[in-house]
Amino acid sequence: MNDNTFLILGGDNRALYLGEYLENQGFKVCYYAFNHTECYNSLEEAINSSDVIVLPLPFTKDRLTLNTPLFDDKVLISDILALLSHKKKVFGGQLPKSFCEELESRDCSYCDYFLLDELAIYNAVPTAEGVVQVLIEELPITIHGMKCAVLGYGRVGKVMANTLYSLGADVTVFARKQSAFAEISASSMKYKHFDALITDFNDFDAMINTVPVKVLGSAQLSKLNPDCVLVEVASAPFGIDFQSAKERAFKVVKAGSLPGKVAPKTAGEIIGRSILPITKEDKL
Amino acid sequence: MNDNTFLILGGDNRALYLGEYLENQGFKVCYYAFNHTECYNSLEEAINSSDVIVLPLPFTKDRLTLNTPLFDDKVLISDILALLSHKKKVFGGQLPKSFCEELESRDCSYCDYFLLDELAIYNAVPTAEGVVQVLIEELPITIHGMKCAVLGYGRVGKVMANTLYSLGADVTVFARKQSAFAEISASSMKYKHFDALITDFNDFDAMINTVPVKVLGSAQLSKLNPDCVLVEVASAPFGIDFQSAKERAFKVVKAGSLPGKVAPKTAGEIIGRSILPITKEDKL
Amino acid sequence: MNDNTFLILGGDNRALYLGEYLENQGFKVCYYAFNHTECYNSLEEAINSSDVIVLPLPFTKDRLTLNTPLFDDKVLISDILALLSHKKKVFGGQLPKSFCEELESRDCSYCDYFLLDELAIYNAVPTAEGVVQVLIEELPITIHGMKCAVLGYGRVGKVMANTLYSLGADVTVFARKQSAFAEISASSMKYKHFDALITDFNDFDAMINTVPVKVLGSAQLSKLNPDCVLVEVASAPFGIDFQSAKERAFKVVKAGSLPGKVAPKTAGEIIGRSILPITKEDKL
Amino acid sequence: MNDNTFLILGGDNRALYLGEYLENQGFKVCYYAFNHTECYNSLEEAINSSDVIVLPLPFTKDRLTLNTPLFDDKVLISDILALLSHKKKVFGGQLPKSFCEELESRDCSYCDYFLLDELAIYNAVPTAEGVVQVLIEELPITIHGMKCAVLGYGRVGKVMANTLYSLGADVTVFARKQSAFAEISASSMKYKHFDALITDFNDFDAMINTVPVKVLGSAQLSKLNPDCVLVEVASAPFGIDFQSAKERAFKVVKAGSLPGKVAPKTAGEIIGRSILPITKEDKL
Repeated sequence: MNDNTFLILGGDNRALYLGEYLENQGFKVCYYAFNHTECYNSLEEAINSSDVIVLPLPFTKDRLTLNTPLFDDKVLISDILALLSHKKKVFGGQLPKSFCEELESRDCSYCDYFLLDELAIYNAVPTAEGVVQVLIEELPITIHGMKCAVLGYGRVGKVMANTLYSLGADVTVFARKQSAFAEISASSMKYKHFDALITDFNDFDAMINTVPVKVLGSAQLSKLNPDCVLVEVASAPFGIDFQSAKERAFKVVKAGSLPGKVAPKTAGEIIGRSILPITKEDKL
Repeated sequence: MNDNTFLILGGDNRALYLGEYLENQGFKVCYYAFNHTECYNSLEEAINSSDVIVLPLPFTKDRLTLNTPLFDDKVLISDILALLSHKKKVFGGQLPKSFCEELESRDCSYCDYFLLDELAIYNAVPTAEGVVQVLIEELPITIHGMKCAVLGYGRVGKVMANTLYSLGADVTVFARKQSAFAEISASSMKYKHFDALITDFNDFDAMINTVPVKVLGSAQLSKLNPDCVLVEVASAPFGIDFQSAKERAFKVVKAGSLPGKVAPKTAGEIIGRSILPITKEDKL
Repeated sequence: MNDNTFLILGGDNRALYLGEYLENQGFKVCYYAFNHTECYNSLEEAINSSDVIVLPLPFTKDRLTLNTPLFDDKVLISDILALLSHKKKVFGGQLPKSFCEELESRDCSYCDYFLLDELAIYNAVPTAEGVVQVLIEELPITIHGMKCAVLGYGRVGKVMANTLYSLGADVTVFARKQSAFAEISASSMKYKHFDALITDFNDFDAMINTVPVKVLGSAQLSKLNPDCVLVEVASAPFGIDFQSAKERAFKVVKAGSLPGKVAPKTAGEIIGRSILPITKEDKL
Repeated sequence: MNDNTFLILGGDNRALYLGEYLENQGFKVCYYAFNHTECYNSLEEAINSSDVIVLPLPFTKDRLTLNTPLFDDKVLISDILALLSHKKKVFGGQLPKSFCEELESRDCSYCDYFLLDELAIYNAVPTAEGVVQVLIEELPITIHGMKCAVLGYGRVGKVMANTLYSLGADVTVFARKQSAFAEISASSMKYKHFDALITDFNDFDAMINTVPVKVLGSAQLSKLNPDCVLVEVASAPFGIDFQSAKERAFKVVKAGSLPGKVAPKTAGEIIGRSILPITKEDKL
């Protein structure tokens, strides 16, 4: 392997589990911006002692300070930037454009792991399990035999649909491309075109949206079984028109950011499995 | 079909869902011992107007009165017996021996549906989903990849193991019979003899017991990963030695009677699917 | 383990693969009644040098001589009996009653492994794969999407149905017991009562029988899609009325004894996995 | 729907099944260049009477005449071109560049269905079943438990790997991209980088190549279990170095063009399902 020293700089439980994962892989790992870790006395010492710096997901919630929910102090983003030199490899999730530009001007190599395809795919598994939990909690029937619609057949939609199918649900996937229909059909599930949300009456027990584009508006909701539970997995601007859903008295569950909630340890390991191969490359 | 009139007499939500199921199958269904149903003015009228009487699961909690959690009054078991004649078909769950003897002396045909093999198998599905919910809630990792042990390979153990396997868990089933090992192996899962609970160190993330006989005592717990979450699905006298587990600081989840909790509608339908074929037979 | 010496006495390739399996498990294994093995000069020497004697499946085809298709000479059953003493453990498949009685009179412990539940279950896997091969060969459509009926839900029927289902077939299992229906339904497949073979028109692409009792006679065939391919997996007296099927011009494939044909090595190992635990018991 | 008249012009059984499929969908279908169909007296009449012309896969084997294995006469490609006008919609498989250019110059709309993503995905299913048949025939063990390597995780590799996994094989997929590893892992299979073909000793029972680029040369074969059966599914220039494989005495099965061989009816329907949505578009 290589002998990088990792600095886990801020974040929630996932960051601590990520550190644990890296330690188990044989790396030297230090922590800063957690109340209960005492690797270093100062941010400067922490950064100077490390080769690879892993920033949290999300990187910041206020654009000024680092996202450090397990730390009583604040860490200013500007303070981090002031300490970074071109020898560091920097990882972070949902890095703002301005931060990236600053890193580039310092000739720092960096990678926003939230944009990695593999991270999104790995995360689809805890996301699907989170939805399984929601469905078990919210409906009085078993997933086995439940008439489920999955909107979208991208990275999340695929794993979602397969997970529900493997639990015995009666799954229909809504997609747009003929190649998606072919894949769904090869997986023994049913498919419909998104247009059928308007043209057909749709008698589902639950509908899970994975598409971050409005696909379930008033017209579509008017053709949907009013007892159908709606689960929103996509991020803003969302696929469900919440206002229309409320007016029509649908039960809606907003289930965002599931990996960190239902399986923080797995979510931390997923970050580790996604960034480790990249640290071995010369350039990020 | 036939033209039986069913009386749903007492019980929880499952009983109401059972009634709904029977109505959807085209049967005449009446209710007694629920606050919000007004089919009949008296127990006598209710029983006299029906051919098939479906009593709840469990039938009673105090051996004197019927189990009627959705009814503000009481219904005495002796009152029911006084009204039953040989023309009635009686179904109930966990009927006490004394009650059955009274029914026999009245030449009533009856059936304890809790003893039906098919009901136990159907119920294994909501039970397995209930455990899925527990595991998602209690562990910081996904079921996908989780090292799970299932103790027992009976009706519940089979469905449990297959459900976890289909979610991508690394499942090991503990059983005793060579024929069970063959079945487990045909399902592509791993198996071990119960003896291995003592002879091996067992590094599981979760262990689910389905055997109503003490199989997880102090000796077995001493060989188990102390972070392993223990889930008890079996009924008394249970498979887990709760006292030993507590002393060793294991996290234990008692997950009994899951079908009625996680999927009361499905649980009600299961009772319906189990008793309907029997009502068509001449003798129960 | 123990230090038994095994004698593989006659049989086809499965017997040789069985020997190989036992050797890989660390046992001393010798062979007799194969052209290309030279462990011993005589049957007497062979038997006297061994603790456990494994006879083939089937044991005999003519009731006089051992079934030795890979041997140019003959081995008389009477010669074997003359050499067996009470210290030997004898295994064989489909042992005739008379042979068993002779063994008992000699106080030999013996076991007909063909009667073992676990062997039948293990063998269901190669049997199912053999049927998969037949269906791929005989029909111009893929198993994926094929309308398949499986008659019977015993040890073979279960694995057969699950195998076809996992390949994406549209599987309906015909069974009789409510508990079987519950199991089939828990596995997300469709079921019908055997009676429906007469009451419904049955539009299947392929029908696989696993029941060794006539279930598919003229009346049933008259209600079946005439292009349906019939596959007989059961042994005599068979479930398909071949005469009626011929008259109605059905394509029929007799697919008996599949494990030895499609996977002789696995079939040999299955015998080994089935008998090994038994050799460790004091009494067979 | 629309009221197109389809002309099936040449091809093998798949073309006839394609016609049957289109008829079942309610379309008017005619045939030319089959011995046993008599829709038209001449190619001219056939083409003039149709709106959509479906040419075979492959379109030609000699670049001069149409591929018409079920026709005793020849059909010259130049004769077809002479009759095509801009009103026709033309479909064909593996159309030569020159033919496409001629179509363009005539302002004909055309589509090479062999290039459609959806067709490749649908075809992956019969391809995978063909490989299943090969493995059952060629190896003395069951697929259940077989150590299988799948080289490549594209459209064919995915379905191949999932099919073998669902039959209980111990599947390792060789791929290159981290996102592929994530997908494989979400499907509960093992993965390795192609580089491991050289760095590790690889103890597989069977290796299936789906990559049309040399990935299994002398160096890789030298690290492979010599009993491993090699199955080539990719088209030229192939992934297996056949010469090296021969020198090292590997058993190699060239399994090309499986859909038409193992499931011609399904293969014909797949062409139909792939082209039908396109005929409804204004422009192909």
